[in-house]
Amino acid sequence: MDRLEAGRIVAGARHAAGVSWQDLADELGRSLVWTTSALLGQQPVDADQAAAVGERLGLSTEVVEALQFPPVRGAAALDPTEPVAYRLQEALQVYGRSISELLAEEFGDGIMSAIDFELSFARRSDPKGDRVVLTLDGKFLPYRVW
Amino acid sequence: MDRLEAGRIVAGARHAAGVSWQDLADELGRSLVWTTSALLGQQPVDADQAAAVGERLGLSTEVVEALQFPPVRGAAALDPTEPVAYRLQEALQVYGRSISELLAEEFGDGIMSAIDFELSFARRSDPKGDRVVLTLDGKFLPYRVW
Amino acid sequence: MDRLEAGRIVAGARHAAGVSWQDLADELGRSLVWTTSALLGQQPVDADQAAAVGERLGLSTEVVEALQFPPVRGAAALDPTEPVAYRLQEALQVYGRSISELLAEEFGDGIMSAIDFELSFARRSDPKGDRVVLTLDGKFLPYRVW
Amino acid sequence: MDRLEAGRIVAGARHAAGVSWQDLADELGRSLVWTTSALLGQQPVDADQAAAVGERLGLSTEVVEALQFPPVRGAAALDPTEPVAYRLQEALQVYGRSISELLAEEFGDGIMSAIDFELSFARRSDPKGDRVVLTLDGKFLPYRVW
Amino acid sequence: MDRLEAGRIVAGARHAAGVSWQDLADELGRSLVWTTSALLGQQPVDADQAAAVGERLGLSTEVVEALQFPPVRGAAALDPTEPVAYRLQEALQVYGRSISELLAEEFGDGIMSAIDFELSFARRSDPKGDRVVLTLDGKFLPYRVW
Amino acid sequence: MDRLEAGRIVAGARHAAGVSWQDLADELGRSLVWTTSALLGQQPVDADQAAAVGERLGLSTEVVEALQFPPVRGAAALDPTEPVAYRLQEALQVYGRSISELLAEEFGDGIMSAIDFELSFARRSDPKGDRVVLTLDGKFLPYRVW
Amino acid sequence: MDRLEAGRIVAGARHAAGVSWQDLADELGRSLVWTTSALLGQQPVDADQAAAVGERLGLSTEVVEALQFPPVRGAAALDPTEPVAYRLQEALQVYGRSISELLAEEFGDGIMSAIDFELSFARRSDPKGDRVVLTLDGKFLPYRVW
Amino acid sequence: MDRLEAGRIVAGARHAAGVSWQDLADELGRSLVWTTSALLGQQPVDADQAAAVGERLGLSTEVVEALQFPPVRGAAALDPTEPVAYRLQEALQVYGRSISELLAEEFGDGIMSAIDFELSFARRSDPKGDRVVLTLDGKFLPYRVW
Amino acid sequence: MDRLEAGRIVAGARHAAGVSWQDLADELGRSLVWTTSALLGQQPVDADQAAAVGERLGLSTEVVEALQFPPVRGAAALDPTEPVAYRLQEALQVYGRSISELLAEEFGDGIMSAIDFELSFARRSDPKGDRVVLTLDGKFLPYRVW
Amino acid sequence: MDRLEAGRIVAGARHAAGVSWQDLADELGRSLVWTTSALLGQQPVDADQAAAVGERLGLSTEVVEALQFPPVRGAAALDPTEPVAYRLQEALQVYGRSISELLAEEFGDGIMSAIDFELSFARRSDPKGDRVVLTLDGKFLPYRVW
Repeated sequence: MDRLEAGRIVAGARHAAGVSWQDLADELGRSLVWTTSALLGQQPVDADQAAAVGERLGLSTEVVEALQFPPVRGAAALDPTEPVAYRLQEALQVYGRSISELLAEEFGDGIMSAIDFELSFARRSDPKGDRVVLTLDGKFLPYRVW
Repeated sequence: MDRLEAGRIVAGARHAAGVSWQDLADELGRSLVWTTSALLGQQPVDADQAAAVGERLGLSTEVVEALQFPPVRGAAALDPTEPVAYRLQEALQVYGRSISELLAEEFGDGIMSAIDFELSFARRSDPKGDRVVLTLDGKFLPYRVW
Repeated sequence: MDRLEAGRIVAGARHAAGVSWQDLADELGRSLVWTTSALLGQQPVDADQAAAVGERLGLSTEVVEALQFPPVRGAAALDPTEPVAYRLQEALQVYGRSISELLAEEFGDGIMSAIDFELSFARRSDPKGDRVVLTLDGKFLPYRVW
Repeated sequence: MDRLEAGRIVAGARHAAGVSWQDLADELGRSLVWTTSALLGQQPVDADQAAAVGERLGLSTEVVEALQFPPVRGAAALDPTEPVAYRLQEALQVYGRSISELLAEEFGDGIMSAIDFELSFARRSDPKGDRVVLTLDGKFLPYRVW
Repeated sequence: MDRLEAGRIVAGARHAAGVSWQDLADELGRSLVWTTSALLGQQPVDADQAAAVGERLGLSTEVVEALQFPPVRGAAALDPTEPVAYRLQEALQVYGRSISELLAEEFGDGIMSAIDFELSFARRSDPKGDRVVLTLDGKFLPYRVW
Repeated sequence: MDRLEAGRIVAGARHAAGVSWQDLADELGRSLVWTTSALLGQQPVDADQAAAVGERLGLSTEVVEALQFPPVRGAAALDPTEPVAYRLQEALQVYGRSISELLAEEFGDGIMSAIDFELSFARRSDPKGDRVVLTLDGKFLPYRVW
Repeated sequence: MDRLEAGRIVAGARHAAGVSWQDLADELGRSLVWTTSALLGQQPVDADQAAAVGERLGLSTEVVEALQFPPVRGAAALDPTEPVAYRLQEALQVYGRSISELLAEEFGDGIMSAIDFELSFARRSDPKGDRVVLTLDGKFLPYRVW
Repeated sequence: MDRLEAGRIVAGARHAAGVSWQDLADELGRSLVWTTSALLGQQPVDADQAAAVGERLGLSTEVVEALQFPPVRGAAALDPTEPVAYRLQEALQVYGRSISELLAEEFGDGIMSAIDFELSFARRSDPKGDRVVLTLDGKFLPYRVW
Repeated sequence: MDRLEAGRIVAGARHAAGVSWQDLADELGRSLVWTTSALLGQQPVDADQAAAVGERLGLSTEVVEALQFPPVRGAAALDPTEPVAYRLQEALQVYGRSISELLAEEFGDGIMSAIDFELSFARRSDPKGDRVVLTLDGKFLPYRVW
Repeated sequence: MDRLEAGRIVAGARHAAGVSWQDLADELGRSLVWTTSALLGQQPVDADQAAAVGERLGLSTEVVEALQFPPVRGAAALDPTEPVAYRLQEALQVYGRSISELLAEEFGDGIMSAIDFELSFARRSDPKGDRVVLTLDGKFLPYRVW
């Protein structure tokens, strides 16, 4: 069993147990998105965290151990052809060049870090249909000149 | 000359003329990110908008005409291997599955629209280094069941 | 066992049992195409629906459980080189640009939703050889301007 | 100048001249979708048809000649990453296996032709937002057994 | 076990039993190439046909059942880098455009069907070395104009 | 101008001049398919042959010279997504393994040459619709054992 | 177990048993390279040869049977990113066009066969470091003109 | 004009002038294959060498200058789908693993250099058809252990 | 003219003028590798820097302007199949996992920055053959936990 | 179990046992990076080395045996989309052309060996954040001219 398989089992067990991702975040004392990504396999989880989640969801020892494997952050972590993921890709395709331009104008030559980075997920109600609001917050890193 | 080439010329002329993207957004009466993406080639620009920008930046007639061509929103709109774009891709790789999970938990079976969608760009100052804040705001669309 | 494997088992059991896809659609109170895609793995199926289908087709508990896993709507859901699928791809290749042009002319800047979307399948008899008629019906979504 | 370039020029000239695709279809005595795909480059256009369109839209001799080149029906005819095209691809991804299954059940071993094939485009008004309706109508072709 | 695996087992059992593909074709009352492609997995095989072949070759019940699964006609059916297959690909690469030209000249706008299609295999003796003769025979299908 | 461009010009000039491919084959004293593939760019053409074709079709000196460039037999020679070419690919996909099996059974370990190879094109009339008949004739080459 | 897996087991058993590839070639009465490629899975091996090798290396019945499966000569036979293989690829990249030119000059229009082909492997001592010498010897095959 | 284009012009001029590659090699005082690859663009050519070749073949100053550009040794140097090149690729596919095995057995852990490397081309007459003999001679380089 | 083309011209002019990269680095007051990468197109160059280099190398105004375009740091910046580049890729292939492991052990969960990053190039003489020494020096960035 | 799986088990066992990679390097009398890459699967490990590591980490016989399999140095050895690996790729993308240029200027026509090659890993403390320093040291190999 690898981290991604463990993540699928956690997601199923959570659903079956009627425990929300926020409940699990509270259990770990971390934010909602970090916790979700950690339990799905994209952040490191230590033995105490794995045990706490295992107890809450009634996971097997094998799953609790697999949760402590190194995180999986490569291409295997996401199916980009899945409809939710694809639309985010497409938004990046449409607005990515604009982000590069505005970053260069505002900050100079550099990037927005994907490591010193947070992402938050929220629901905003709207009479025409509720909206999903994702906030990406990353440190600006200037290219080194030497 | 196609839309993308026109966009590159606008970006260069804007820089040379010392006009900010926000100035151009004010000229068009639109938001900063929409305006940038429109002038780079990803949104439709009508004759009046093209003429206004052309006058402000001293663009040739050929560029002003090319700005009115249909928008380019396919893969040609972005080089995903460019470092700024790549980090956004990577963040999606790392957090995409989490977004899918939280969307399903909070809203049910559906997607976050990339069409009824806004993106904002901001700078947040931070003593450890200023940060880039991108806010993605898209309507939730439930899958039709029939 | 994953959703796609469960779908293959349902398809085989249905054939062996002499139950039509329409029978299963009637069982679930849904349309023919939605039901087929749900049982093959592309729509969510709840516990009651899975149990009803399981009973009708004599499926194992393992299959009934797998039918309740999240839907698989990424590239794994279809082999595009299979001859029936390929011809639909090719028709899109030949007529796709025309659809984009006509959509822009008739509705303006936007897309035809693949989420608020229905597809129906019908046979039309014709003396020169019966014909397959697929009707795709999706909501127009205008690009947001802000 | 190739067929695709000629098609882009026709599309622009049509827009500038305020002539609808239906007007051009009436000019040629063909259906709306066939005419659009022919003028964009996916169907053969003979000298009389090219001349008639050329006169109506004020096209150069070079464009009128290029319209008579052989049709372009390969992958170059469509950018599958363009948002309108992608959603049709995705719908095929989600419903393609279902179409194969229903075709086999209803007609037996064979395909839906993409050659003896028609496609129609229509707008259906709906209080919740108007809808795009595409009808694909292709002859069933059984696999030869010998 | 899937159709392709069943096909590999049939091929091995046939060889071990000293039964020729023509013997199996005679058993089924079909042509040589159709029978070979059916038993390798590319044509539908019904219960009687599967049973007859199973008896002749001493196949297990599992293989006999797998022979009745739907045919596999996608890319998985062939390794295009295998030397025999590659040379056929290459011949198509070299002569494909010529076939398109000659088809258009002789028949008009359309294709050679791969569905209403037969293929025969023969050996022709030649003093300089015997030759393989493949005859491809497919119905011409004209593009529909509407 | 390269060989492929020269080939496109020959094909257009031939059509405009009302000269058939068979006429050109007679001019060169070669078969129909060889001549077509040579003039489209896939076989070597010498100075006399190029001059004869140039005179018959009224080609420019530049085209006559380009016809004598080395043949283009790589992937650039064919667009495999063009509908006529695709169906031949698909037929190979469906029947290729069968050809390999029958070749091995009949001839032993080896291949059918794509070099010592001929291809003929014919029309066969049929009351249900005329048929295209392609005959591929290649020398069997046994693998060397040493 | 397939041919490639059997080949890996032979290679390991040979090493463990201290038997050289030349010993195995002597056992089969074939050349060094042919024998190595046959036992790794790229040439047909008959029952007697498989039995002889099996006895010499103490292979299981399952491996001895798998050695008699058809050879694997497609892309699966080699990992082109493995450093030894890559350098051969690269040499072909650098010298391939030269080989084509010299072949055309010396022999005329045709190819060097990869079927009626031998390859030998030798060590040549050199005071600056010993060298690997590979000799590729293939029959020239002229393109058929008809 | 780049190196590859210059190489194509050299090859054509050589053919037209009736100068052999060996003549050019003699002119430069280098071997046949090195000279051919240098003039096609894969080795560095200095000003004197370029001038000598330019004079012998009557090349323009532009070509003589382009011959002195840096060599092109990446993937652009070869079309691997061209039939002569493909067969060499395929031979590598079939015998590459054997070469790795024999190299490891004979020399230990390392590679055959593609840099300290020579390739020779020869014709060997044979009553059954003349043969092409390529000899690849590369220094063995052991992996460093530290 | 784009940045990459300007870079190729700079490289050629530098060679022709007998100016070393170090000379250009001294001219700009930057390090050797930064200067080389800037002039080849991978770092931003301002008007003064471009003018200084232009004067030193006698570049045209067009090149001096192109040097000030935004840097090109995507995949177009490098041909990974070029032999020097490939070996660096391969070294990464062989040692990349080790670097990840050692980074995690020594620094914890994070990355080595490619932005706050320097690279130096040096020659080290060695009696067995001089060696190239590349030093990569990047800031460790820990993953944010929130 | 293959070499890569064995490498993952070693990495996990090492972590669990609180043994550092340097401890293992000391055990084998090799450098840190060589040892890490060897135990992860990219260098050959002999029976004594495998036994020593197995004893130190309490590995099963199966793992100890798998450590002695041939090294895996192809693309399977690294996931290039993993964030640590990607940044090294990207640095190569940005600085690779510069390295080629400087190598040619300093050493002449040749490459930096990836075989006669060492890599060292070090931490350098820095008040603004500690840095990772990788040193790549490879022999220069000149292209052979013959």
